[in-house]
Amino acid sequence: MEKSVVLGIDIGGTNTIYGFIMRDGTIIFHDEIPTYGAKPISDLIGRISDNVKRFFSENLDYSLSGIGIGAPNGNHYTGMIQSPPNLSWGNIDIVSLFKKEINAETLLTNDANAAALGEKFFGLAKNMNDFVVVTLGTGLGSGIFSSGKLLYGYDGFAGEMGHISIDFNGRLCNCGNKGCLESYASATGIKNTIKNLIEIDPQNKLLQILNKDNLDGSFLDKAYDEGNKTAIKIYHLTGEKLGQGLAIVANLLSPEAFIFYGGFSNAGERILSPARKSMKENLINNSGKNIKLIQSGLPQGQAGILGAASMIWTK
Amino acid sequence: MEKSVVLGIDIGGTNTIYGFIMRDGTIIFHDEIPTYGAKPISDLIGRISDNVKRFFSENLDYSLSGIGIGAPNGNHYTGMIQSPPNLSWGNIDIVSLFKKEINAETLLTNDANAAALGEKFFGLAKNMNDFVVVTLGTGLGSGIFSSGKLLYGYDGFAGEMGHISIDFNGRLCNCGNKGCLESYASATGIKNTIKNLIEIDPQNKLLQILNKDNLDGSFLDKAYDEGNKTAIKIYHLTGEKLGQGLAIVANLLSPEAFIFYGGFSNAGERILSPARKSMKENLINNSGKNIKLIQSGLPQGQAGILGAASMIWTK
Repeated sequence: MEKSVVLGIDIGGTNTIYGFIMRDGTIIFHDEIPTYGAKPISDLIGRISDNVKRFFSENLDYSLSGIGIGAPNGNHYTGMIQSPPNLSWGNIDIVSLFKKEINAETLLTNDANAAALGEKFFGLAKNMNDFVVVTLGTGLGSGIFSSGKLLYGYDGFAGEMGHISIDFNGRLCNCGNKGCLESYASATGIKNTIKNLIEIDPQNKLLQILNKDNLDGSFLDKAYDEGNKTAIKIYHLTGEKLGQGLAIVANLLSPEAFIFYGGFSNAGERILSPARKSMKENLINNSGKNIKLIQSGLPQGQAGILGAASMIWTK
Repeated sequence: MEKSVVLGIDIGGTNTIYGFIMRDGTIIFHDEIPTYGAKPISDLIGRISDNVKRFFSENLDYSLSGIGIGAPNGNHYTGMIQSPPNLSWGNIDIVSLFKKEINAETLLTNDANAAALGEKFFGLAKNMNDFVVVTLGTGLGSGIFSSGKLLYGYDGFAGEMGHISIDFNGRLCNCGNKGCLESYASATGIKNTIKNLIEIDPQNKLLQILNKDNLDGSFLDKAYDEGNKTAIKIYHLTGEKLGQGLAIVANLLSPEAFIFYGGFSNAGERILSPARKSMKENLINNSGKNIKLIQSGLPQGQAGILGAASMIWTK
């Protein structure tokens, strides 16, 4: 008997992950390939499509049940990726383009929503109906579950937690607005913080090492663990701002938990501990709620493809 | 044949409204009575219960299908009103208390959620699935619909939009936190603003007249309409802050509309116009979204009892 799999795709600014996923979340095969965002989208689709065709020609006992895609600025309602950051594609109807290459039902959502779906169906949120997945990477994204359903909003663009302002006179964000949570609590945010701190303390060795285009998160973690005061300051400041954003979301949505996913979430309690304290201070009836802040248990890179695939399995 | 009605009750800090509502939203009879929040809750329940019994003894062609209650800090999940502000009751199991007096199915929600349900089933939001009702009165409350469902959150306390902070170093709110939206955009907020302005400009006649315990909203409206610069300043400042809060909610939830209800919403475009401008400036992709800000069309005092009753009619 043929075994059904869904092709789950997680398109990122630098790399794209795809894999074949069974209904129970078993990943039969997965691979990471460069996105090449400066080339036209047809290049990426062509490479994935070739790999998919090869997989099924070599694995005759599997059949394809559909395609689920997570992508930055992916819109579930329209099937369009709309001007994704760091990618040159403009507005593209990726659902139609995939259907043309691979004849299978195709559903799209954004990358943070895909991670939230991954947690709901295969991760820590299996038994939760009200939770928010916060993706911490270059930016800050979020996927919101309420009453057991992923929230899309009227136009499909709900969940822009990275761009709620925690200080309307604060840092200028890449989006053009001021004080966006992302400009404090993300790799970009930490780089901003390092730049601010080095202006006051230009001789600080840790800041000199960290003040690069690519933030070395594990180096910062190590310095923190060794008790470096500057590293502690960076994480405390970042956690404090993150907690303010969490409090805003918690006052509005009252979730059971925030689940953190993405490269920069590996900082774990170094950032979640000050974030928890700051969140509690800014909750209404701050003593009453005990909202959990937890790190995802899904392997890095898998929440996205699992969640993307779940759209087909649970539709 | 007997005609079914639901008893809808909207408990307020000062007055309580109750009425008998048919499935199509027709209000057969409604009345407003003092809440007397300093007396025990049994006093209020006794008076309502007496009136209900008299109604049915005088109107033999009606039968009672259930009771819907909206109340400050009312929890849909537990049936408890938890330490309502301005009322001396502490935590009370109002659902059980009403069931004991009047043998009928009883459901509870909070006052802002009741207003949101009223808009969904009998008001401007009939054809909307994603909208937020903002109640502007002494405080600022909200009821959130997303994907056609009222959001309760994990513990039943979602929707505390009045207590999202728009300035973590800002005004001290009655809740103990800083910069809560309610401390700027509500009758309480406007009183705060008047107090701040009169410190700088103690001779200002309008401020002297307005600086009282009970804010005279229609006087402020009239001054605004006559071009009084201080009145314009008050509404512009209030609208700017309100718009910042709306932008935070809109970035998270992407609603089709915000619908404003409650005494202070009568200011209408005087406050919604600056709020709209400020919201747009603080939205991600600010040009892209065209979120409506509209005043409720339901008569003052009716959204609450209609929405409370709808819980029984639509369960």
